[in-house]
Amino acid sequence: MAVSFARRMEVVKASEIREILKITQRPGVISFAGGLPAPELFPVAEMDEASHLVLAEQGPTALQYSTTEGHPPLREKIAQRMDAKWGTRLSASEILVTVGSQQGLDLVAKLFLDEDDVVLCESPTYLGAISAFNVFRPRWVEVATDGEGMDPIALDRALAANPRAKLIYVVPNFQNPTGRTWSLARRKALMEIATRHAVPVLEDNPYGELRFEGESLPAIQSFDTEGLVLSVGTFSKVFCPGLRIGWVAAPRRYLDRLVILKQGADLHTPTLGQMQLDRYMELHDLDANVGRIRAVYRDRRDAMARALEREMPAGVTFSRPAGGLFLWVELPDALDARELLKRCLAREVAFVPGGAFFPNGGHENTLRLNFSNMPIERIEEGVRRLAASVRDLLAEGPVPEREAAVATP
Amino acid sequence: MAVSFARRMEVVKASEIREILKITQRPGVISFAGGLPAPELFPVAEMDEASHLVLAEQGPTALQYSTTEGHPPLREKIAQRMDAKWGTRLSASEILVTVGSQQGLDLVAKLFLDEDDVVLCESPTYLGAISAFNVFRPRWVEVATDGEGMDPIALDRALAANPRAKLIYVVPNFQNPTGRTWSLARRKALMEIATRHAVPVLEDNPYGELRFEGESLPAIQSFDTEGLVLSVGTFSKVFCPGLRIGWVAAPRRYLDRLVILKQGADLHTPTLGQMQLDRYMELHDLDANVGRIRAVYRDRRDAMARALEREMPAGVTFSRPAGGLFLWVELPDALDARELLKRCLAREVAFVPGGAFFPNGGHENTLRLNFSNMPIERIEEGVRRLAASVRDLLAEGPVPEREAAVATP
Repeated sequence: MAVSFARRMEVVKASEIREILKITQRPGVISFAGGLPAPELFPVAEMDEASHLVLAEQGPTALQYSTTEGHPPLREKIAQRMDAKWGTRLSASEILVTVGSQQGLDLVAKLFLDEDDVVLCESPTYLGAISAFNVFRPRWVEVATDGEGMDPIALDRALAANPRAKLIYVVPNFQNPTGRTWSLARRKALMEIATRHAVPVLEDNPYGELRFEGESLPAIQSFDTEGLVLSVGTFSKVFCPGLRIGWVAAPRRYLDRLVILKQGADLHTPTLGQMQLDRYMELHDLDANVGRIRAVYRDRRDAMARALEREMPAGVTFSRPAGGLFLWVELPDALDARELLKRCLAREVAFVPGGAFFPNGGHENTLRLNFSNMPIERIEEGVRRLAASVRDLLAEGPVPEREAAVATP
Repeated sequence: MAVSFARRMEVVKASEIREILKITQRPGVISFAGGLPAPELFPVAEMDEASHLVLAEQGPTALQYSTTEGHPPLREKIAQRMDAKWGTRLSASEILVTVGSQQGLDLVAKLFLDEDDVVLCESPTYLGAISAFNVFRPRWVEVATDGEGMDPIALDRALAANPRAKLIYVVPNFQNPTGRTWSLARRKALMEIATRHAVPVLEDNPYGELRFEGESLPAIQSFDTEGLVLSVGTFSKVFCPGLRIGWVAAPRRYLDRLVILKQGADLHTPTLGQMQLDRYMELHDLDANVGRIRAVYRDRRDAMARALEREMPAGVTFSRPAGGLFLWVELPDALDARELLKRCLAREVAFVPGGAFFPNGGHENTLRLNFSNMPIERIEEGVRRLAASVRDLLAEGPVPEREAAVATP
């Protein structure tokens, strides 16, 4: 029977990562595909304690409906943490607690995007943002991006060329998928340009606290004088993702509207989870937990970088991020990472082809590797299998369909 | 600075209930305004036990990311419960676990609604559905509804007259706001008409298990032979709302797309909460808990109905629902429930004016009363204050702006 869906469903497709992750759930597979934290570092006993105290002391409140904005003491702690770590000057009334930062992306897209509005983003950008925003059918303009962040001249030109620019979306710290971090100069330049064009900025910072070396840089939001920046954050990477607690931090003219949209979307973030997290943070030092995570992930990044250096044939380059969860690999132009993935799955190793992270397509010779979720021996073994697959693919020569691409390297 | 929002923000407004609830959070106020379950009935100790067992036995899994579809054993239990209670024949693969049933409304709206598409609904209908759907800018066609449900002839005509009809939204059991329940004949008639017009039906059933007398009727979904019905349900009213766990039950052609939309919206429903609920249901008899809730709410409904009968002046009518959380009151046509609310707030008693539940406006002489959240003495005292305010308003005579309405009763 012919039932018609909304037109947006033409562009809303199953995520490539989602499909790959399904394949990789077999126990033998070494998966660099997901973006999962290391579960052995989750503070399970501490959560059990916090959970018991919340239920014993405030059980009926913890199980009842609560305000859409979020649990007030948790909003307060989020504002204070952001100010201390990122140089912002936020009040609790500028924080909306969301079901992960992913929900923040959905709500911000709802707030700003009509069909054919333009979103400017890094190239490549976070796949989850592409999924969340595409529901509202924007056009994507990828701004030239290098190891320091977006190119300011390219951004300025793109804004001038696109009167329907509604939002600039950036992940300035240890970006997913490339792992790269914006310089201080580029952060300030973005804020100056966005202010001149009066275009709001959405700053996504899930990984910022997972810095392995060097000093943290202030958030773009800290340079905002005109109330143009909204940011999203999450406890998924510094605490645990299973609670699904993130937030939007934004001036009230945005936040008040986001609260209304959130109410229509799910009424509020689960009360019990918010109170468990808040209680945990009162009982324990979350920063100490972050320190443990950083140490483990740093070793894993080092192990993966060493293995890539040792195993990969010439012509393969990769990033060495100063934090976060991901490494970015570029194959010789003639190679297609989707073809590589087929060969890798036969060897029981998986990753995400990088093309998925470019909203306008292309860049099929790239791939994203996760290093946070796997002990070092498995990382080393996985990279050996990956490199063997790359060598196989190189030996086969360019695939016929891609010869044109090979001609212009 | 002039920042432009999406056009949808013109119709996305702060909910009236939300604003009233803020006023009523003062301790002295007797509030019939919310739709809150009785917190003294929440199984707090049992949740503490379930929570401890989940964390002790499966802690890292409970705190990790999980599948978008939901915790598999919980999906299984939901399908089995629905089949047992509502005559459906669902498999776990047709269940998507959501952040409350409110999220189901948002996702279904995303799946079906383009701007100016038509949603057919009861008159009045659930305010939260109006909020969720309005984000996608549909037109609302209110179908004539009586104590048995939607008028089948009116529905058939409305479908014939609206080629852009995309969805029929109904709450067949103890509806919010009126408390009314559809007859068996009307359920079958709706399914026959929807099938003939090939228009999907969204059946919202948050209150069905809270039946105080009589026998449960099968879900409209149980009569679906063509895969046209999606339903949403929730544990908020039979267990507790603070976990925010609901579901969509739908044929795979819808469910698979809803899963993609859910992934873009928040990745997945919190893992820990799903596992806590699942464990609770393994350890305890949820139906026994529902029985306790039913007994308490039945007494409260009786107390409210008796008090209204005793206290209200002539010309005021009200429903006596066979279940659920709400009673519906109609004042004489000349009276405006928003005016009444002002006088009631001065007496520290609150309710929701009924006009908010009519997506196309009107019906300002109606109001919704909640009876689930208040001990009987408070219900009786609140109704006394409410009735006194009605008498005051009657004594003042019709308000000038509404004289036209008074002339045509």
